[in-house]
Amino acid sequence: MKIAVLPGDGIGTEIVAEAVKVLNALDLKFEMESALVGGAAYDAHGHPLPESTLKLAKEADAILFGAVGDWKYDKLDRPLRPEQAILGLRKNLGLFANFRPAICYEQLVDASSLKPELVAGLDILIIRELTGDIYFGQPRGRREAPDGEFKGAPEAFDTMRYSKPEIERIAHVAFQAARKRNKKVTSVDKANVLETFQFWKDTMIEVHAQYPDVELQHMYVDNAAMQLVKAPKAFDVVVTGNMFGDILSDEASMLTGSIGMLPSASLNVKNQGLYEPSHGSAPDIAGKGIANPLATILSAAMLLRFSLNQEEAAQRIEAAVQKVLAQGLRTGDIWSEGTTKVGTAQMGDAVVKAL
Amino acid sequence: MKIAVLPGDGIGTEIVAEAVKVLNALDLKFEMESALVGGAAYDAHGHPLPESTLKLAKEADAILFGAVGDWKYDKLDRPLRPEQAILGLRKNLGLFANFRPAICYEQLVDASSLKPELVAGLDILIIRELTGDIYFGQPRGRREAPDGEFKGAPEAFDTMRYSKPEIERIAHVAFQAARKRNKKVTSVDKANVLETFQFWKDTMIEVHAQYPDVELQHMYVDNAAMQLVKAPKAFDVVVTGNMFGDILSDEASMLTGSIGMLPSASLNVKNQGLYEPSHGSAPDIAGKGIANPLATILSAAMLLRFSLNQEEAAQRIEAAVQKVLAQGLRTGDIWSEGTTKVGTAQMGDAVVKAL
Ligand SMILES: CC(C)[C@H](C(=O)O)[C@@H](O)C(=O)O
Ligand SMILES: CC(C)[C@H](C(=O)O)[C@@H](O)C(=O)O
Repeated sequence: MKIAVLPGDGIGTEIVAEAVKVLNALDLKFEMESALVGGAAYDAHGHPLPESTLKLAKEADAILFGAVGDWKYDKLDRPLRPEQAILGLRKNLGLFANFRPAICYEQLVDASSLKPELVAGLDILIIRELTGDIYFGQPRGRREAPDGEFKGAPEAFDTMRYSKPEIERIAHVAFQAARKRNKKVTSVDKANVLETFQFWKDTMIEVHAQYPDVELQHMYVDNAAMQLVKAPKAFDVVVTGNMFGDILSDEASMLTGSIGMLPSASLNVKNQGLYEPSHGSAPDIAGKGIANPLATILSAAMLLRFSLNQEEAAQRIEAAVQKVLAQGLRTGDIWSEGTTKVGTAQMGDAVVKAL
Repeated sequence: MKIAVLPGDGIGTEIVAEAVKVLNALDLKFEMESALVGGAAYDAHGHPLPESTLKLAKEADAILFGAVGDWKYDKLDRPLRPEQAILGLRKNLGLFANFRPAICYEQLVDASSLKPELVAGLDILIIRELTGDIYFGQPRGRREAPDGEFKGAPEAFDTMRYSKPEIERIAHVAFQAARKRNKKVTSVDKANVLETFQFWKDTMIEVHAQYPDVELQHMYVDNAAMQLVKAPKAFDVVVTGNMFGDILSDEASMLTGSIGMLPSASLNVKNQGLYEPSHGSAPDIAGKGIANPLATILSAAMLLRFSLNQEEAAQRIEAAVQKVLAQGLRTGDIWSEGTTKVGTAQMGDAVVKAL
């Protein structure tokens, strides 16, 4: 078994180092190999996703990913910017199923913007389709407007697309995930406006026929953005397209108040997966040793569960994280009066000790 | 001066009746003429936006709109569904600039899902482009996938498009609105992924050169969805495209906890406008006389301000609404211990009395 370790930029290197520490402490047999990605790879090789990094990622059973991006790359042409690495990995490896849990840890309820009673016990799973939609749809670009009120004016355009097999496979993922949880799927669409999402909705209904034990609810994306604020606990599994999923999964993780705790997994049909924290590269605090490594450590647990089939080891990590929280250890982002503030490495060490 | 009154479906008729009551109490000279729209128009004429209604709307200086939609029309073909009326009015009248204030009234702070300190004093203005983007972009439809991994499979697609003049005119609207407020514009895009929104961002920067006194900030839509939850008061004017604006404006209004209080305006280049509450038709409480008419009454105030150039009358209405809130009158949606629960008509009467 092989894990590709891609720390990336900003706090990426610091938080991934802690997750690697935890993986090494497990006494399991797997190989780990590191490579540059994002801005770090651009600096060294002139490209955010060099051939060698892509090759390593393809060969590995799983990828442990940190984060990419830094303001200093803002001026580069789009294809060279750090975030192209993550888009490239998703597309090249076919990582179509993105799992983004939004969990509010009991001890961290007060960190939320929301009133405690609205988020205590929150545990929802957002499943975002990750290789289709307007993210990759062709054609796209700039041109003279071919028609309409401003015919002839410069315009830019993109194509939103979903084919039936793409919707079907993410639907199966969602219904199967719901079976292991509270058996409710909310499919988020914009069927009242978009052809793509009327088709999405129709296809969800078709696939649902195979899962009579799971409840299927349909919700417009604007309403979903509201209901997440109003009553987030009413959701169980949320499934949606790439663009809406980008927005709603970030909104949902911020609701918990502790995005520094939230892992994510992106899987392909072979259960090869990329595992990364839900938060970004936070260049403003990079190198200071204060970033929260727990989302990355919990991503490593998901990696063991989904791609390496090591459920027991995954649970050991998750229990260890619960333990350090119970011990009152907190990085700055989740710190509150009465708890002990620790740095990135101290937090990683504490998890290792708690294993 | 002529106001077209289009109550629509669900609670639409009840809440619009109260706004009309308030307008009539002002002793201003204008004509009002009503017509059916949405499901009500479909039932009577077989179309949600009959020719006669569209003609009235076009001739009027302003439109007072209630809400459209009811589950019972869900099975109709898309072109006949109630919400097509609102899309048709926007497109036919060129109502490109949608103003959606998200204000948290002092007396209603506790109705919010968010902690009081995060929303007390909240006053942001979301400006959503309303006639372009993926809402109206052609081509769209269903076909066999012309290329890609699932070439030949059934697929659906839509086109996201923005031409330069469309972006420029909404940019001017946003910068000019910011000048009358706190002089800060946040332009929300997804320039890291979409050609359309890289062009949006570039054009915002160009137009900004004419407004050196206004600060321009750029934010990705996923981050905006998070920052609205985390620190909504950091925003002043938010400007974005039709699709992102649909999602973010609903999220923002729900943050206030009192969406039943929030008006909206949609204007064209001639300041002809459509005015409607930010909430929907709420068929579940229709006909019960319990809906909150204040968002519609405040929409009538915006109508007087923007389309009829009656600033003083607009302020009289707004002051009257403040007064009934101070008196402790509340409809069910904003009621809390210690305040007086009233119905739709009682609330309208109270506003008239407070004028
Ligand atoms: C960096 C960006 C391209 C990416 C996305 O939009 O998918 C990010 O926001 C994410 O959600 O992983
Ligand atoms: C009813 C629907 C078409 C509409 C939209 O998406 O614009 C609504 O959600 C709105 O925001 O006015």
